[in-house]
Amino acid sequence: MGKEKKVYIFDSILRDGSQAQGVSFSVADKIKIVKKLDELGIDYIEAGNPSSNPKDREFFEEIRSLKLKHSKLCAFGSTRRAGAKAEEDEGIKKLVDSGVNVFSIFGKAWDFHVTDIIKTSIEENLNMIRDSIKYLVSLNKEVVFDAEHFFDGFKSNKEYAIEVLNTARLAGAKWIVLCDTNGGTMPNEVSDIVKYLVRDLNFDNLGVHFHDDSGMAVANSVVAVHYGVNHVQGTFTGVGERCGNANLSNIIANLSLKMGYNTIKNDKLEYLTVAFRYICEACNMTPNERVAYVGNCAFSHKGGMHIDAVRKNPKSFEHIDPSRVGNSRRILVSEVSGRSTILPALKRINPKIDKDSPETKAVVKRIKDLEYLGYQFEGAEGSFELLMRKELNVFRPSFELVEYKVIAERPYLSDLSATAIVKIMVNGKLETTAADGKGPVNALDKALRKALGVFYKELANVYLTDYKVRVISGTKATSAKIRVLIESTDGVSTWTTVGVSYDIIEASWLALVDSVEYKLIQCNKEENNNEKTDDYDTKNTCEPCRA
Amino acid sequence: MGKEKKVYIFDSILRDGSQAQGVSFSVADKIKIVKKLDELGIDYIEAGNPSSNPKDREFFEEIRSLKLKHSKLCAFGSTRRAGAKAEEDEGIKKLVDSGVNVFSIFGKAWDFHVTDIIKTSIEENLNMIRDSIKYLVSLNKEVVFDAEHFFDGFKSNKEYAIEVLNTARLAGAKWIVLCDTNGGTMPNEVSDIVKYLVRDLNFDNLGVHFHDDSGMAVANSVVAVHYGVNHVQGTFTGVGERCGNANLSNIIANLSLKMGYNTIKNDKLEYLTVAFRYICEACNMTPNERVAYVGNCAFSHKGGMHIDAVRKNPKSFEHIDPSRVGNSRRILVSEVSGRSTILPALKRINPKIDKDSPETKAVVKRIKDLEYLGYQFEGAEGSFELLMRKELNVFRPSFELVEYKVIAERPYLSDLSATAIVKIMVNGKLETTAADGKGPVNALDKALRKALGVFYKELANVYLTDYKVRVISGTKATSAKIRVLIESTDGVSTWTTVGVSYDIIEASWLALVDSVEYKLIQCNKEENNNEKTDDYDTKNTCEPCRA
Repeated sequence: MGKEKKVYIFDSILRDGSQAQGVSFSVADKIKIVKKLDELGIDYIEAGNPSSNPKDREFFEEIRSLKLKHSKLCAFGSTRRAGAKAEEDEGIKKLVDSGVNVFSIFGKAWDFHVTDIIKTSIEENLNMIRDSIKYLVSLNKEVVFDAEHFFDGFKSNKEYAIEVLNTARLAGAKWIVLCDTNGGTMPNEVSDIVKYLVRDLNFDNLGVHFHDDSGMAVANSVVAVHYGVNHVQGTFTGVGERCGNANLSNIIANLSLKMGYNTIKNDKLEYLTVAFRYICEACNMTPNERVAYVGNCAFSHKGGMHIDAVRKNPKSFEHIDPSRVGNSRRILVSEVSGRSTILPALKRINPKIDKDSPETKAVVKRIKDLEYLGYQFEGAEGSFELLMRKELNVFRPSFELVEYKVIAERPYLSDLSATAIVKIMVNGKLETTAADGKGPVNALDKALRKALGVFYKELANVYLTDYKVRVISGTKATSAKIRVLIESTDGVSTWTTVGVSYDIIEASWLALVDSVEYKLIQCNKEENNNEKTDDYDTKNTCEPCRA
Repeated sequence: MGKEKKVYIFDSILRDGSQAQGVSFSVADKIKIVKKLDELGIDYIEAGNPSSNPKDREFFEEIRSLKLKHSKLCAFGSTRRAGAKAEEDEGIKKLVDSGVNVFSIFGKAWDFHVTDIIKTSIEENLNMIRDSIKYLVSLNKEVVFDAEHFFDGFKSNKEYAIEVLNTARLAGAKWIVLCDTNGGTMPNEVSDIVKYLVRDLNFDNLGVHFHDDSGMAVANSVVAVHYGVNHVQGTFTGVGERCGNANLSNIIANLSLKMGYNTIKNDKLEYLTVAFRYICEACNMTPNERVAYVGNCAFSHKGGMHIDAVRKNPKSFEHIDPSRVGNSRRILVSEVSGRSTILPALKRINPKIDKDSPETKAVVKRIKDLEYLGYQFEGAEGSFELLMRKELNVFRPSFELVEYKVIAERPYLSDLSATAIVKIMVNGKLETTAADGKGPVNALDKALRKALGVFYKELANVYLTDYKVRVISGTKATSAKIRVLIESTDGVSTWTTVGVSYDIIEASWLALVDSVEYKLIQCNKEENNNEKTDDYDTKNTCEPCRA
């Protein structure tokens, strides 16, 4: 059943995801994520709750000017309060003021929650749902009604839970979303309940919203679609309150590749893996390497028999071709081809290079070697560009480090707790400088910039906008290996570079060096104006150098 | 259906788990895990493959002397090779020599694998299955037949897949296990196929073995049980080849607590969480904190509305009582939470405090002030406990910092790139130490631990398991404020502490200090045994101090 049927994908990472332990987005993080989800073709992006905090309100103001290609932005809120009028309700006013055209509003579908938690009558709860939806629909807004606790409500008082759905439907909600808010529902219950709603009660335009408290969120979502639901809520990486929401990267893959549904466009499926890593990065979370489809281990083979079999025929131990979701096979003992992946970037540096050039092989080998050491180039286009240039012998370092020394201490006198001494050599000239900083990395950054500033004026406007540190190996103590990703900007464009070391200062140093080297390359490109750079995030680089 | 029915639990972490990327067990690790699984009452432990490597053979020799209370040990192998006699087959000989009484042997149930991968005839494959099982049964051994690739085989050639099952059944296998070796099967397929086998073909004593390549392993397992299977294979933590096996800690909880089946004994369910952490530790893996039931976040609440509701009635946002699986509720303290959120925690320190006490107001104010500075206490229960104790004037620091100085440099000679000097004062005694480290934080951590170790032996087993750094203000350069979260463990429980500074070393220092202070408070609590700690994650703290 359901072949080719469209299933609408609704992402809530910016709202439900932000309720997860350890997640806290800046406005800039949120905008990055919105752009990425839009690029993928996610149908709805639940962008936040404008009445919950000022940060979300600021965000809604900022995104008004964003032109999205595909996604509809949605603001999240509640039905009106008991006893109030919808049009006068503070929360609903803030929803309307957010300036978007889709609203997801939640109302209680479990009688226990109505009487014992929000403490109103079950009749007034229905009025709250009806009035709120009617009012928003009267403003020509699209309403997604989240029937909170629907599955628990159905099991406790089926008639009332269904009355809630009918009330929302009659009031004009476009989507009615069955929520498993506590995440305790089993797949056989989902199939029975959805079947009943769709076949016996003729509900259509139904959605589902599952939490993963029983380890069932992805499965429950696809089971619901199998029985007729055509809207799935979740978060792209699966992060969300408690154990998380349904992982949309998995649901999209399952629905599109296994079950014949239409979710995001087929030619976007191959970006699932890179989008997963990008969004984990933006959340400052280590990507779960064992997650289905998009994890690092998803197609890695270790057992000898499995490796032999996969060599004979990949389908022997791979449920899908990994390239369909942009992932790749990893044979844990030997090299894999990645040549065709990097070829376009190589050709931009040297158009004569092809797939079989020794340089191509050398770059692939270098990537593998560095990844083995903990590097990761997916989100670090600055360091990746430098890596290619080094292997192609077209990289000329702008300076040579003779020595740095960083001293940090406590107590300290001023607010500058660290000092760095940097000695560099440029064209045979030694430059020794020192700088105090707010911490060792800042001191090092300032000292390096001070020393380089003697030679390169174009670095004056460059500063770091983000700095991420990740413990790579889940092993003992603070001696684990550390990966630093830094994002730099010159006020116009941004780029990311990476460094890996056991020493956080050294890792930061490596990323800092790549950052300035990358900037200087872009400036040279601008001057020479002889290279096209359309694939990577460098199009607008070096505006300041021109000035 | 199926109420009170026994479902046999079969753990393969020592076999399938060892095929996961990054997992490698010593014989001692394996014995630790066997004992823990036996303690829990897991029915079968697949202990290894005696013909695959000498380490497994050594292990089987060692465990002969182990007296297990409940579990049956099982050795894993293959059916005989094509053209050989079962009793002369090398692999089968090694199985028999392993000295255990249960054997799981796999045979192909997908015709494509028979003809294209092991390259024999589909008739000979049936003979291999029949002969091998008959021979082992003739030695009075219990045989678990793993029908490898059964689900893919069924979809490709149903008749042959069923012939494989029938062959194994007639040859005397006690259990016939339907394997989803590649992990690509959807739950609706599982229900259709299992229903057909059980209802139409009258199969009984069926097992299942799912992989998580589609994110479905747990769900598929419970769906199969719902339709009549009574043996589930998986690994206790979910680790296994590629994306992993079905997570047994989740399956046990779902079957026993949600679906009324009998798995491990009910009084053992409350050890699920501690066993999960213990086994992750034995695998040298960071426990996935967001995993259902047993993860650190599984019952953590952050949204203010959720916190209020859980206080009114836990079932409002908890699908089960966390204590039933030995986990506990975590109220994440954040800027949105008010006095009622923190009151229970305050009352544990001083039962006389109520919502309107000046101490309560002072703690709320302190949290807000610190959060304004960039602190975040959700998930940092260690630092939160210390904050409360400081505001209630019941905190006595274990040491006083006189000075630290950290020096990091490049180039460096050994692999230790940093040196820290720490001077602390304990009860009027000055202790000055220094340590080299892999980076400044490691050096500082080592020096602090070395200095404190002179006074406090109970810190010997504490080490850091995770270290997170976040730039808080998305502003300029490396001088932005930095938040460090560190997770520490003593091998039994874990706790998280937080530090904030412009200086990454200072932020790390603050989190390190909180980590050791928190540990020392827990040890004192144990000694005094005068405080109840049921809401927070401290129940099992300080095992090592008792010893």
